[in-house]
Amino acid sequence: MKSSQMKVSGIGEKGLIERIIERSKTCSVNGEDFNSDSSFATSIGDDSALTNIDLKENSYLVSSSDMLIQSSHFPPEMSYFQMGYKSVVVNVSDLASMGADNIGFLLNIAIPKDTLLDDFDDLICGVIRACDDYHIPLIGGDTNEANEIIISGTAIGEVDKDKVLMKYGFKEGDLVCLTGGLGLAALGFELLNMKQLLKNNLFEMVDLQDKINSAYEIDSTLCDMALFKALKPEAKHVEGHILRDLNTGENRITATDITDGLASEFYEILNSDKRQYQFENGDKKISTHSDSSYSKGIRIYEDKLPVEDEFKEISNALGLDYLDLFLHVGEDFEFLFTINRELEDQLENELDFYVIGEIIEKNTVEIVLSNGTIEKISSKGYQHLK
Amino acid sequence: MKSSQMKVSGIGEKGLIERIIERSKTCSVNGEDFNSDSSFATSIGDDSALTNIDLKENSYLVSSSDMLIQSSHFPPEMSYFQMGYKSVVVNVSDLASMGADNIGFLLNIAIPKDTLLDDFDDLICGVIRACDDYHIPLIGGDTNEANEIIISGTAIGEVDKDKVLMKYGFKEGDLVCLTGGLGLAALGFELLNMKQLLKNNLFEMVDLQDKINSAYEIDSTLCDMALFKALKPEAKHVEGHILRDLNTGENRITATDITDGLASEFYEILNSDKRQYQFENGDKKISTHSDSSYSKGIRIYEDKLPVEDEFKEISNALGLDYLDLFLHVGEDFEFLFTINRELEDQLENELDFYVIGEIIEKNTVEIVLSNGTIEKISSKGYQHLK
Repeated sequence: MKSSQMKVSGIGEKGLIERIIERSKTCSVNGEDFNSDSSFATSIGDDSALTNIDLKENSYLVSSSDMLIQSSHFPPEMSYFQMGYKSVVVNVSDLASMGADNIGFLLNIAIPKDTLLDDFDDLICGVIRACDDYHIPLIGGDTNEANEIIISGTAIGEVDKDKVLMKYGFKEGDLVCLTGGLGLAALGFELLNMKQLLKNNLFEMVDLQDKINSAYEIDSTLCDMALFKALKPEAKHVEGHILRDLNTGENRITATDITDGLASEFYEILNSDKRQYQFENGDKKISTHSDSSYSKGIRIYEDKLPVEDEFKEISNALGLDYLDLFLHVGEDFEFLFTINRELEDQLENELDFYVIGEIIEKNTVEIVLSNGTIEKISSKGYQHLK
Repeated sequence: MKSSQMKVSGIGEKGLIERIIERSKTCSVNGEDFNSDSSFATSIGDDSALTNIDLKENSYLVSSSDMLIQSSHFPPEMSYFQMGYKSVVVNVSDLASMGADNIGFLLNIAIPKDTLLDDFDDLICGVIRACDDYHIPLIGGDTNEANEIIISGTAIGEVDKDKVLMKYGFKEGDLVCLTGGLGLAALGFELLNMKQLLKNNLFEMVDLQDKINSAYEIDSTLCDMALFKALKPEAKHVEGHILRDLNTGENRITATDITDGLASEFYEILNSDKRQYQFENGDKKISTHSDSSYSKGIRIYEDKLPVEDEFKEISNALGLDYLDLFLHVGEDFEFLFTINRELEDQLENELDFYVIGEIIEKNTVEIVLSNGTIEKISSKGYQHLK
């Protein structure tokens, strides 16, 4: 049987693991060859992965584990390579937003048994390519059978305790910043959804096709970028390291990656800061619900948001609210971070970033709209299971 | 709505994570209260888990990640508590069989959105109870939505490089040993299957009910123990530490946990040893298929297997081959390990174990049956995706 028709059930779990090990040496995707730095240690095929590490003194071990499920996290248009790539990105992003250096990546994958071996190989190449791009060796994992593709990745790293980028620790007056624009991935997902709808329902969808056409007429490059951003997200690991290195002495930096929408992350960082406040003030009940004298909040300004006019126009053409895309949909993997004001000038020399607001002395999240009115921002990001 | 009727969709992903954090403080299951030592570090709710570690010099970081999927790994009779418990056991077992000390556990869980909140709580209590039992703090994780329950756990630990228990490194004449009897979990799964069949098909199953009755008449305690072992496996972490501590100086110990059946593990340790042999002899192609001058094998003796007569009789009554249960079904989580002969007496003072055979100078796996004939053992353990 030709390899291209062979299914994963033909070689079984151990054969697949052997295949991953072989693939981790050389991968070829879309005709492009690349050699992988990914290395299994002496523990190939043993019960656990062994990693040589030389943890610096005063370091935390940093670990992050995220599960991606085909029906929730992978649009139908996403390639196997992109699925594999994304499974590394989501975990590396979590490590990077703590300022951590990478140590290793563990891959747990479950696939339907009638998956083509070629597709499995593409997925693994996506994983390995991402491991290469983010300098994180693939050190272990497991394969299983399931009705749909499930990838559970775990990234392990380390970070200097004094420089770690927590979500909490900002003070009134600190600047609220982004590493880049938001909403592009959201726009990409909307376009993908619309195209999928068109594909599945050929009739009475003229309207939808017209909308898509208008969007492409406004700025086809931006539309293509949106699709690309939705299908192949990237982690801001360089930005994480720059922020971490500056998080020393008088400087004060907090950071998180935006996965569930900016508004949702605003409430996340406030909850985290409040929890820490309660903890430091002896309130043992770790909860975000209890009353306390906590009084920090966030104010952002519509005029300061990094949004291109074309993005607003395309959103409009598609019948979408650009601010909704910007605030309430995730998957961009940009960082939301805060800095003390004194750091702004210095940081501008090292990083492209956008100041969009500040920490205020009122426990609320609000936006000053272009027309001068102030609105409260609710936390409705994307939450699973609701 | 009463908590007992509430579904997980009612509180959403972040609510569930909050719930896990709260549950990690106190759990009550079946009326039994226990306090958990499980501790989230300062990073509760942050992007990654931060763990304070003081890695000893000359240590490996050890990591293991295993995914359990309801339809493959959890029999219908398994309680939510037991599912959670097992997800920790499988990973701790992998760490223990390297001789590692535990550092932390990451829990990725996906559940159907109509799961009752009470069931979710039970599952989390199972996880936390196991984390307590094996002294491994729950340090992080993620919740998601899926059509069935999927638990992907990652255990992180450390081990002294000089004492790590690899699968490879045994020599001709070394003793092949087990930490305990095998086949009990397999018997339990068979009983569960039979009971399930009876439940689903009320007619024409008199025969099956007769078989089960005979089994219970032979030894009802053993039948109950088999069910318990299938539903609530345990990891041999104490045994792993004893073996590791002895793996020094002149001593030579290799070990693995038996998850896919003893026969399958025999081939695993030979493959691992062969791979290492090729590696040390400059064969860069890491493969178990290529020819080589490798010539080690395993011989075991039926008469030395730790099997009770009642186990044989019950197997017989159920129409099963006891040796098949012993050799070809996994999930017992006992250790298969090898020691140099000189170590036997010393080890007997510290550990209950069974010598079942030896390493021979012939690349085969064979069993000397009670009647004196020698048979080759094939590798047919349980493999997913075949």
